[in-house]
Amino acid sequence: MSPAAPDDALPEGQTLGEGKYLRLISENGWEYVVRPHSTGVVVIVAVTAERRLILVEQRRVAVHSQVVELPAGLVGDTAAARGEPLATAARRELLEETGYEAERMVELAAGPIAVGIGSEIVTFFHAQGLRRTGPGGGDETEQIVVHEVALSELAGWLAAKRQSGALVDPKLFAGLYLIGEAG
Amino acid sequence: MSPAAPDDALPEGQTLGEGKYLRLISENGWEYVVRPHSTGVVVIVAVTAERRLILVEQRRVAVHSQVVELPAGLVGDTAAARGEPLATAARRELLEETGYEAERMVELAAGPIAVGIGSEIVTFFHAQGLRRTGPGGGDETEQIVVHEVALSELAGWLAAKRQSGALVDPKLFAGLYLIGEAG
Repeated sequence: MSPAAPDDALPEGQTLGEGKYLRLISENGWEYVVRPHSTGVVVIVAVTAERRLILVEQRRVAVHSQVVELPAGLVGDTAAARGEPLATAARRELLEETGYEAERMVELAAGPIAVGIGSEIVTFFHAQGLRRTGPGGGDETEQIVVHEVALSELAGWLAAKRQSGALVDPKLFAGLYLIGEAG
Repeated sequence: MSPAAPDDALPEGQTLGEGKYLRLISENGWEYVVRPHSTGVVVIVAVTAERRLILVEQRRVAVHSQVVELPAGLVGDTAAARGEPLATAARRELLEETGYEAERMVELAAGPIAVGIGSEIVTFFHAQGLRRTGPGGGDETEQIVVHEVALSELAGWLAAKRQSGALVDPKLFAGLYLIGEAG
């Protein structure tokens, strides 16, 4: 293992359980999970020239529901992606999930989104200069539906989705704020 | 245990590890944590009459850093709070952490904030009609610093905080979007 491998950055603490992807840690009376084989999470805010927000929808086992989200993914979680820059992961995930390529991938902000349960740091990117070049839909393990929703109709569209039983990831609202949109 | 106790709502799956607060589950090849002794998380967006956003700052073990966040807390996680409505938890947490009481606690939106690692559903509230009546600072297990930051100066204030080594929870931006603020 190289000195810069993700495992070296793991915090001290007692391991309470370990899966293939997540490790549950207890430290000084606090509990949280880490993802040893990834170096981060990227979330992509992508609005087309026609002012349509690109969203993905997929079934999420953790909540046993369909969830509407911004395109997103793990950084450096495969052998091929080890050590990749955050912006590279953002480009890869946007293309895999939605079929869009971006001329520019601008970093907006980074921070811990669920610090009560995990160490995960999420970095938001603004995908600019969009061009659809692929089918999207995710990799072979994913079943992702892509939506393009006019920002002017977003509130009503999300309300209808919720009515049909889907959940909406609030990171969507954070992303819109970060690109200067008002709620 | 009563039929409505939180444990009854737990999903199927194999337990890989269990702490005092969190349980690590594997289900159909996916891993995530649940918090069996709580029924939710509330996050409170509170802006004073002077257009100052109320923020809290505390050390978070999961990321080994100071984190700047909206006031927030668990729902129904103590014997005294078992079965409490979400809005009641929001009022309690706002008062405990910041010393503010709100005339109205308006629900904004709810959703899974970190569905790749946990089942947690976060509900955002807008605290309206604020009045400071207590010291804040959290309960006996917490060491919370309260900040009141003019919305017009927020971006610069957050940049300075980051410069000093603190992390910023992006839920803050989601909350601002949900009350109609533009980034």
